[in-house]
Amino acid sequence: MTSIRAAVMVAPHVPIELRELPTPALESGAAMLRTLYSEVCGTDVHLHAGRLGGVPYPIIPGHVSVGHIESLRGTVTDIEGQPFREGDLVTFLDVHETCGACYECLVTKQTTRCAHRKVYGITYGVADGPLGGWAEQIWMKPGVKLLRIPEGVDPIRFIAGGCGLVTAIHAVERAGVRLGSSVVVLGVGPVGQAAIALAGLSGAAPIIAIGGPDSRLDFARRMGATHTLSLDMPADDRALAVRALTGGRGVDIVIEAAGVPTAVTQGLDLVRDGGRVLVAGQYTDGGPADFNPHHQLNRKHAELIGCWGCDYSHFHRALQVLADQGRDLPWDEGISARFSLAQANEALAAVASRAVVKALIVPYGE
Amino acid sequence: MTSIRAAVMVAPHVPIELRELPTPALESGAAMLRTLYSEVCGTDVHLHAGRLGGVPYPIIPGHVSVGHIESLRGTVTDIEGQPFREGDLVTFLDVHETCGACYECLVTKQTTRCAHRKVYGITYGVADGPLGGWAEQIWMKPGVKLLRIPEGVDPIRFIAGGCGLVTAIHAVERAGVRLGSSVVVLGVGPVGQAAIALAGLSGAAPIIAIGGPDSRLDFARRMGATHTLSLDMPADDRALAVRALTGGRGVDIVIEAAGVPTAVTQGLDLVRDGGRVLVAGQYTDGGPADFNPHHQLNRKHAELIGCWGCDYSHFHRALQVLADQGRDLPWDEGISARFSLAQANEALAAVASRAVVKALIVPYGE
Amino acid sequence: MTSIRAAVMVAPHVPIELRELPTPALESGAAMLRTLYSEVCGTDVHLHAGRLGGVPYPIIPGHVSVGHIESLRGTVTDIEGQPFREGDLVTFLDVHETCGACYECLVTKQTTRCAHRKVYGITYGVADGPLGGWAEQIWMKPGVKLLRIPEGVDPIRFIAGGCGLVTAIHAVERAGVRLGSSVVVLGVGPVGQAAIALAGLSGAAPIIAIGGPDSRLDFARRMGATHTLSLDMPADDRALAVRALTGGRGVDIVIEAAGVPTAVTQGLDLVRDGGRVLVAGQYTDGGPADFNPHHQLNRKHAELIGCWGCDYSHFHRALQVLADQGRDLPWDEGISARFSLAQANEALAAVASRAVVKALIVPYGE
Amino acid sequence: MTSIRAAVMVAPHVPIELRELPTPALESGAAMLRTLYSEVCGTDVHLHAGRLGGVPYPIIPGHVSVGHIESLRGTVTDIEGQPFREGDLVTFLDVHETCGACYECLVTKQTTRCAHRKVYGITYGVADGPLGGWAEQIWMKPGVKLLRIPEGVDPIRFIAGGCGLVTAIHAVERAGVRLGSSVVVLGVGPVGQAAIALAGLSGAAPIIAIGGPDSRLDFARRMGATHTLSLDMPADDRALAVRALTGGRGVDIVIEAAGVPTAVTQGLDLVRDGGRVLVAGQYTDGGPADFNPHHQLNRKHAELIGCWGCDYSHFHRALQVLADQGRDLPWDEGISARFSLAQANEALAAVASRAVVKALIVPYGE
Repeated sequence: MTSIRAAVMVAPHVPIELRELPTPALESGAAMLRTLYSEVCGTDVHLHAGRLGGVPYPIIPGHVSVGHIESLRGTVTDIEGQPFREGDLVTFLDVHETCGACYECLVTKQTTRCAHRKVYGITYGVADGPLGGWAEQIWMKPGVKLLRIPEGVDPIRFIAGGCGLVTAIHAVERAGVRLGSSVVVLGVGPVGQAAIALAGLSGAAPIIAIGGPDSRLDFARRMGATHTLSLDMPADDRALAVRALTGGRGVDIVIEAAGVPTAVTQGLDLVRDGGRVLVAGQYTDGGPADFNPHHQLNRKHAELIGCWGCDYSHFHRALQVLADQGRDLPWDEGISARFSLAQANEALAAVASRAVVKALIVPYGE
Repeated sequence: MTSIRAAVMVAPHVPIELRELPTPALESGAAMLRTLYSEVCGTDVHLHAGRLGGVPYPIIPGHVSVGHIESLRGTVTDIEGQPFREGDLVTFLDVHETCGACYECLVTKQTTRCAHRKVYGITYGVADGPLGGWAEQIWMKPGVKLLRIPEGVDPIRFIAGGCGLVTAIHAVERAGVRLGSSVVVLGVGPVGQAAIALAGLSGAAPIIAIGGPDSRLDFARRMGATHTLSLDMPADDRALAVRALTGGRGVDIVIEAAGVPTAVTQGLDLVRDGGRVLVAGQYTDGGPADFNPHHQLNRKHAELIGCWGCDYSHFHRALQVLADQGRDLPWDEGISARFSLAQANEALAAVASRAVVKALIVPYGE
Repeated sequence: MTSIRAAVMVAPHVPIELRELPTPALESGAAMLRTLYSEVCGTDVHLHAGRLGGVPYPIIPGHVSVGHIESLRGTVTDIEGQPFREGDLVTFLDVHETCGACYECLVTKQTTRCAHRKVYGITYGVADGPLGGWAEQIWMKPGVKLLRIPEGVDPIRFIAGGCGLVTAIHAVERAGVRLGSSVVVLGVGPVGQAAIALAGLSGAAPIIAIGGPDSRLDFARRMGATHTLSLDMPADDRALAVRALTGGRGVDIVIEAAGVPTAVTQGLDLVRDGGRVLVAGQYTDGGPADFNPHHQLNRKHAELIGCWGCDYSHFHRALQVLADQGRDLPWDEGISARFSLAQANEALAAVASRAVVKALIVPYGE
Repeated sequence: MTSIRAAVMVAPHVPIELRELPTPALESGAAMLRTLYSEVCGTDVHLHAGRLGGVPYPIIPGHVSVGHIESLRGTVTDIEGQPFREGDLVTFLDVHETCGACYECLVTKQTTRCAHRKVYGITYGVADGPLGGWAEQIWMKPGVKLLRIPEGVDPIRFIAGGCGLVTAIHAVERAGVRLGSSVVVLGVGPVGQAAIALAGLSGAAPIIAIGGPDSRLDFARRMGATHTLSLDMPADDRALAVRALTGGRGVDIVIEAAGVPTAVTQGLDLVRDGGRVLVAGQYTDGGPADFNPHHQLNRKHAELIGCWGCDYSHFHRALQVLADQGRDLPWDEGISARFSLAQANEALAAVASRAVVKALIVPYGE
């Protein structure tokens, strides 16, 4: 293949275009992935709205993807030291080039805050090469972390979890959800649905999903929510309902995956004294939130915790969960639409309008 | 003694009056304390301004106090099982009647949120008996936790630490300050000064105190601040100064002891990515604070943690620190004024006007 | 009822006798429980063998029990403040009189190490009253913590979990088992079986149960073990099998519930570098264990953690798990035999011989 | 310089020889360090006794060293991104080539257990180049983490802390020492002395050093021990003395830095219920230790924690401590002897015989 067809986001608000990119020459340790599925994520909507800083437009969107290794040079191994081979079905950690040499990598040990990190589909430009998933092939630069899709995991189920799943893995871990935790999940988009599932697999109960529309609340129940509350209900009534389910106290843990600033404030109302609100949904700047530090934080002895990005371990756990503890959950019911590369604008519109929970780009059809 | 003279706060905004209260008959396990010193704390100013809910006025203020055991009935022991005797110099945990039988006491194990807790000088009324420190004697009801002032600790130094010290012990512990932590302390009143001292004893560096006036910043340096920044400097410049001292990143830990809602927001600006802001100063409702959950929490991977009240362990540690690690610090320099019971109104006014850091009620003079 | 029939353990190695005890006069806050079931636990075997120190024989064994409130005086409330009424089906925290006033209760905050704690069925003597479960009625002294058996929880299922379940709740919590943890459980008696169930409900995988005989391993699989290894297999082969299931590394967490000292050493062989071995099974002195601190601890960067006793929160969680997350598990299949008070010696013999996993004393039959 | 003189450990038990090694050609990102000081550590004694596995003799010993950059190629930066220049005074993380791609690096996030890590002076052979400190120059391969010796830190003080200091930083951090912790340090060699200092800087009290001979206990007191107990005292008496200093309970934290297996067992006797024993001293296989899992672990609710190796963050903190919190401690009093390259055998003998606490190799004299 001498060129690669890709859907290119030229600039914010400008229609996505199909372009042909030259296939890169592979250095040792590099590989090309033939794209099976690439996700259309809320982040892509943000990208198209110009809500993220530092994006080197034009870019090829698509950060979480799955595909087969089309070609590789030299030896590329997994974390067990097993070499990958052509034809292997894999995904990859979209975060690349965390430097391993800065304060964040070496002292605070939070690689998600490494200033040198690059993210496929977001912070690589078209000029850098085919480094986004909305393309026939994706260039795995040397050092990109590939992960095998385990036997028994249908790739459609992995991509259905996708970016929301790895984000939720990080959120649920940092929130400290464990057996017996009572949990509210604010928001029933991809992150919220995955957080519901993971809370359930962690032994939390009750798990109260708050969001809308009703079809998403139905899905939330199939993913593990024990109770759902609709946004049609006034916020005060929702708070009363949460208290009624928790001895009047509020829940141990709130996971905010709604994306609007007011959700953070509401989270502080729904958590019990000494509980924790994990903020995972404020991925872009939605403006300020108000809160009362006396009533909602100091006196409550509460914790409000931000959660940014993900690392290899979250992809690792995500695959384990799909293959094992969570194998019976209906992950792929969250996918409502599939689009070809040529339909990337429609895909984006569908997600932006919330008409679908999640859409996929399927370059070669199914 | 058949009656006890006490300074009584009749109601918010009403001048404090001297009253004679009958000496209670001691049940077994009870004691009377002859008051040596009782603190005039910012809380007393709040009480007089009517800023706390559920206060059964009229009350005898004074929650942290020190005195000699005047009389006792039956056996009252310390945590080592050693009986107290008349004449012993002691303080006591002002928090009483945490029930040991509710969800907070038994399941979440945060007795500071027990709904049944009573606090000497705050939530007991005059009708309940002499249960506040601004009095000649204080009634130690059965079950009140008495603590010996260790040999070598001048009681004036204990009361100089007082309520601010035990609050700061809790805050520094919950903030996780440890060897090598970089710390900002917002506010240089009693809680802030104690937090500065404790951070220093914990091996933190740098310790940047932010507040005013200059005399308090001078004191902060003597207590262990390695740097001070005045409120006369614009907030943005202070943020730049903190960054200049921390490789451009902000500090590991901010301890908010300033008491104004904007301090919480500023704290989120001063902390590094992945750092922690401990909110200890929002003891009363100062209104809402604004913050940007995207920039200041989610993307920063930061933690914002409320800290309410204290328990026995914090008094225990406070006495240890005064006797041992912190014995060379100038705790008592923070006390700028002493007042008789009859001067309680002047004492309150002095603290309210911030003319003094801390004032004492000294019923029997010195 | 003017007297209460009880099975009394007169002294170690001496047959248990039936005795009539006077019914105590109830002080305010006290209650009498009509015993529905009382457990025959491994501890009772230890008691009869004289393996525990400080036991005031003669005693009435039976620490975990369930029954109906026969009578009560004054007001006795649950942690929500709801009063109990005659006829309520309850269990109770067998640990009583933690003092709330010692170093362990107030400073280290580990009430399981309070020197003043008393345990029903173990550290109360017959002379103290009917304070053990192997009796028609059990005296709930004022302050004993009663817990309602939730609607929908068959009491047979609670007692089937019993002491092993609350011990395992503590162990799994202290071990930090969470979604994705790989776990070995050493021992498939009551504690081990409950630990297996709780690990599964916490999202652990794989969960490898090691023990015997085969019938217990079968039960372990129904409780949630994903793999079982028999003691018939040499220890080295078991270690190889565990490594084969964990990429050659060993598991994240080992829970020792076997009760023989060599299990601790084996646990250190089965855990991965940086993993944790939680020791819950060394309830009595089985003699010393050998280990190599270089290879098995220092170089492994491993943690070996002891877990003693339980508190109210563990009973609380146990009831929640039975009512909710774990409602579909076959808890009561672990009960192999029921005995009348008169058959207490047979009950003890059955447990001692490991002929049954768990036996019950059922004073009034079923 | 076309060749580099180095002290080469040919094989265990064989006298060290002086050899001339060719100066390597520097690839981009590499540097040569002109050795100012290199440490003679207990590890070097172990190496010469053949007590470590997998060592590619002949080797150049010397893992912690300090020197000036003699030459460099391309750009080498510190963690702040500041380039190093010739003449800079630096040390370096002796651990190299942690892979960033294995289970330990990516999932358990404990790079000290990365199987690919190499250690200067230990796991590099002479054939690999001048990769040990007992040489005129040390080859900094690309990717080696260099750290500046901060202004105001005399390099002799850094090397005096040396390997023991970074090991102790890790140990004290993993042990969770904090303000008010009571601590026993077992062993008063380089690791123990540094642990004593760091515990003091962390606000621990009391700090009880146990070891010998008396000259080392004197040094321990100058480093911050509040009490010392000699090995001349029987172990039981030492245990009594520790209890007498801790209300009969034992200490919160024991740091084992003694290196003999029995110290681990003793540590479990000296720690309070619920306390923690951190094992840092079992760096080589000294054989098995006995302990009683019932009395010393399960019933005590205690934690026994192994601590292996160190990473960049520990070097970072060590330099901060020397420059700041610990600048007034007599670090360099621990150095009793300095040797030329030609005297490497004498240096080793002096450390092996415990005649000195620490010896230095000083290739160019002082």
